[in-house]
Amino acid sequence: MVTNCVDMKEKTIDLNCDLGESFGIYQLGMDDDVMPHITSANIACGWHAGDPVVMNKTVQSAVANTINCGAHPGYPDLLGFGRRAMNVNNEELKHYLIYQIGALQAFCHVHDTKLCHVKPHGSLYHKAVENEATAVAVAEAISQIDKDLIYVALAGEKGRMMARIGKEFGLNVAFEAFPDRAYTAEGSLAPRSIKGAVITDPDEVIARALQIARDGCIDDIEGNRIELTVHTLCVHGDNPHAVQMVKKIRSVLKENDITVRPFQL
Amino acid sequence: MVTNCVDMKEKTIDLNCDLGESFGIYQLGMDDDVMPHITSANIACGWHAGDPVVMNKTVQSAVANTINCGAHPGYPDLLGFGRRAMNVNNEELKHYLIYQIGALQAFCHVHDTKLCHVKPHGSLYHKAVENEATAVAVAEAISQIDKDLIYVALAGEKGRMMARIGKEFGLNVAFEAFPDRAYTAEGSLAPRSIKGAVITDPDEVIARALQIARDGCIDDIEGNRIELTVHTLCVHGDNPHAVQMVKKIRSVLKENDITVRPFQL
Amino acid sequence: MVTNCVDMKEKTIDLNCDLGESFGIYQLGMDDDVMPHITSANIACGWHAGDPVVMNKTVQSAVANTINCGAHPGYPDLLGFGRRAMNVNNEELKHYLIYQIGALQAFCHVHDTKLCHVKPHGSLYHKAVENEATAVAVAEAISQIDKDLIYVALAGEKGRMMARIGKEFGLNVAFEAFPDRAYTAEGSLAPRSIKGAVITDPDEVIARALQIARDGCIDDIEGNRIELTVHTLCVHGDNPHAVQMVKKIRSVLKENDITVRPFQL
Amino acid sequence: MVTNCVDMKEKTIDLNCDLGESFGIYQLGMDDDVMPHITSANIACGWHAGDPVVMNKTVQSAVANTINCGAHPGYPDLLGFGRRAMNVNNEELKHYLIYQIGALQAFCHVHDTKLCHVKPHGSLYHKAVENEATAVAVAEAISQIDKDLIYVALAGEKGRMMARIGKEFGLNVAFEAFPDRAYTAEGSLAPRSIKGAVITDPDEVIARALQIARDGCIDDIEGNRIELTVHTLCVHGDNPHAVQMVKKIRSVLKENDITVRPFQL
Repeated sequence: MVTNCVDMKEKTIDLNCDLGESFGIYQLGMDDDVMPHITSANIACGWHAGDPVVMNKTVQSAVANTINCGAHPGYPDLLGFGRRAMNVNNEELKHYLIYQIGALQAFCHVHDTKLCHVKPHGSLYHKAVENEATAVAVAEAISQIDKDLIYVALAGEKGRMMARIGKEFGLNVAFEAFPDRAYTAEGSLAPRSIKGAVITDPDEVIARALQIARDGCIDDIEGNRIELTVHTLCVHGDNPHAVQMVKKIRSVLKENDITVRPFQL
Repeated sequence: MVTNCVDMKEKTIDLNCDLGESFGIYQLGMDDDVMPHITSANIACGWHAGDPVVMNKTVQSAVANTINCGAHPGYPDLLGFGRRAMNVNNEELKHYLIYQIGALQAFCHVHDTKLCHVKPHGSLYHKAVENEATAVAVAEAISQIDKDLIYVALAGEKGRMMARIGKEFGLNVAFEAFPDRAYTAEGSLAPRSIKGAVITDPDEVIARALQIARDGCIDDIEGNRIELTVHTLCVHGDNPHAVQMVKKIRSVLKENDITVRPFQL
Repeated sequence: MVTNCVDMKEKTIDLNCDLGESFGIYQLGMDDDVMPHITSANIACGWHAGDPVVMNKTVQSAVANTINCGAHPGYPDLLGFGRRAMNVNNEELKHYLIYQIGALQAFCHVHDTKLCHVKPHGSLYHKAVENEATAVAVAEAISQIDKDLIYVALAGEKGRMMARIGKEFGLNVAFEAFPDRAYTAEGSLAPRSIKGAVITDPDEVIARALQIARDGCIDDIEGNRIELTVHTLCVHGDNPHAVQMVKKIRSVLKENDITVRPFQL
Repeated sequence: MVTNCVDMKEKTIDLNCDLGESFGIYQLGMDDDVMPHITSANIACGWHAGDPVVMNKTVQSAVANTINCGAHPGYPDLLGFGRRAMNVNNEELKHYLIYQIGALQAFCHVHDTKLCHVKPHGSLYHKAVENEATAVAVAEAISQIDKDLIYVALAGEKGRMMARIGKEFGLNVAFEAFPDRAYTAEGSLAPRSIKGAVITDPDEVIARALQIARDGCIDDIEGNRIELTVHTLCVHGDNPHAVQMVKKIRSVLKENDITVRPFQL
């Protein structure tokens, strides 16, 4: 007999997507197409991707679609899209984040909305999961800017330290899961080098999104069920297929009486 | 008989200086030495100079010295220090400025102070003086961020358009003069290519600073007196001589009963 | 009665295209698709577009397609794609070009081919057409690197100065025309702001390409025939339609006994 | 009784220094002052430091001082001066190096000299010492550009792998030592975090330079003598004291019948 891991009164979930990653003449992502189907936008801040024109347009679109604006700051590495580990001193890192978040905040102010959350990008996200001093730098930057900002952290066992640090700095922490990524028994994302780490079958991704949102758990890469308390699912808008999948995820969640709405902690 | 151009009850003047222009390992300017002698800091925002670590340190020092923090945004041209004309589309320019000012605002917030003013840097300043659409882009960016921000504009006949635009956008405008630069009969800065455009004799610079602050006028390059209503004098902190000159200017102003304090409009 | 402007024994023409404009994760252009149909590649050098990985791949593909490799250096303005006027000091500009051309030369060396030509990109191209000191800086940079490099200059009356300067520096100059751009009576490209400046009807573009290559002349925007001696036609590979057009141009030229091959001066 | 570790007929040594590290308006180092006293210049290539104008000037000065020109390529991290570890894919890294070395080669060509050597900069140097795949990427880049280029590698036990890889790619390898750095018993540089890792007493640095050059050995941090076969000593030109020390090192070497000249392998 299979039982749900959790049983809440009203089930809600947020769908977040990395947006505003174009730069100058370079277009990336299908922001306009995916926006109507998500509830939170993680907006690049000009260091690993994005530029002021793109940031302005993305905030404007997010407001038009009544979705949450969040900052998605990254390493100073446009050439590597912020996906490469960089050994940045944590005190310097903190200031890199204040800079990027502050810049995005200004665009939110211009469009009469409030910056809601911060999610570190790419390699910085991974380091904040692994390394306590990095997690501190990120949390400290966020809390110094605005203690009401929500800190998006990896859900599950693996993200526990990152989340704890966020709470120690007085931040609300939203747990995030990745329905298209395999999880290890320890609750961390299986490394991309492992076969099956990225799940490409749309039906499976949709089923996993539902399992996480409805049941608060996920089958790990060895087939065992692990608990996964989650406020937001990370989805993608890179291509037409990705956009279709987000649309499908949203409708399946709805059919299962799960309210898709911006996270409120 | 020589008469003063103006006669105010209490004479006050602000001394502003471009600061925070170091970048990474590269040091520029003697910020710590000049800070005690000025009243307003124009802080580079990371595009033509400055970086988040420098911005943080500069705001922190400004607060410690109880001087005004202002943003000094520029073109995206670190290699040219923002001194080269760039034909940036004005709509894009506006967003470049929102980005830079917003980033600095975050550091001001972190250090519990308020961003007071904005002064465009280098080639952007010159273009805002010359070109109405550029002046509009600058004023619009500032006013969209915060209508209480003071817009620093060139004093005199030449700066009239820039100032008018600022006021049309509801901004308070502070007029700025350059005691070490020669003025043409039309009240614009004599181009650097002309002999005598930059005044290097310390005594003359000090005398001109006093003339501007006390009398509200200046002798133009042909020796005629022109009116120059001014709220702030631009001084430099690039080298020990420059710092000494600022110190001297301040003491001479004081001896002449002119209060040196941050502009309040 | 219509007569040809020129009548050569064997008619030949080169087809050049701007390539290698991707950057990091950002893809631009359909390089692989257009390469088989052109004879000269103008390869971005990492300042306005391109990066070392892209440069390497593009040179490798050019060699595989047995087409000419050329450098396409631009202003230091990735954010503006080198399309914005920048007031770069000409002595500095010369060194910017030596740097970029030298970097591309290294990739040519690695792939056992020789850099054949240099064509300034975007706003730098326009400035070299308009401004003699800029044209000198460009020609001097090229000639200091290798006097056998071909300097690609605008064909027609308007490009005369640029070409003359190239020759004064001992360079071979290849004249370039744009079949999809309208020409003024003076033989310059009609500004994009004018209606009809960019020709979008594929049949018209193809007809103009043929007129230029076969007859050495073109109908200007007022309908008058002007002479246009040309070694190379600039074509585009930005999208599937553009690639199709290049393919069509090439076959129409062939049907008219015009040999499409890399320029040899 | 103390005996020399080695005994050669004519003792020679090269003195190398990192130069050309200014950028735009930002000045770094006292290149003009140190040049007359060294024999090899490691010239920054615009990624972690340096720009085309600086590169041109530095090559020109090196030629005027008849010293060797070498490339000093680094990570794409101007903000961190190439001193931060960056997890760059090795295939990409190879192309980053080809780009930078090629650019510098062009300036050497313009000034009628030949690029002599390549020494990776900062964090890249450390990674090439530690990590075989990185050492391969560096050596492959150099050998693809010119097999006559000398690869500068860390002397001693610790640098053995880096040197072996260079030789496997057919390169001549020059061993480098640091007279102002303490060595561990294993022959690697003592980490800067350890007390005494950087030797600041001028007399001691000079004595160590002599010991290395004359005796082919050095006292490690525990006081034991270790062998150190060396072709070049790394010296500094950051400040007046550093320049004085280089001058002193050179004269002491001369007094001890050691010829200071560019390495020839």
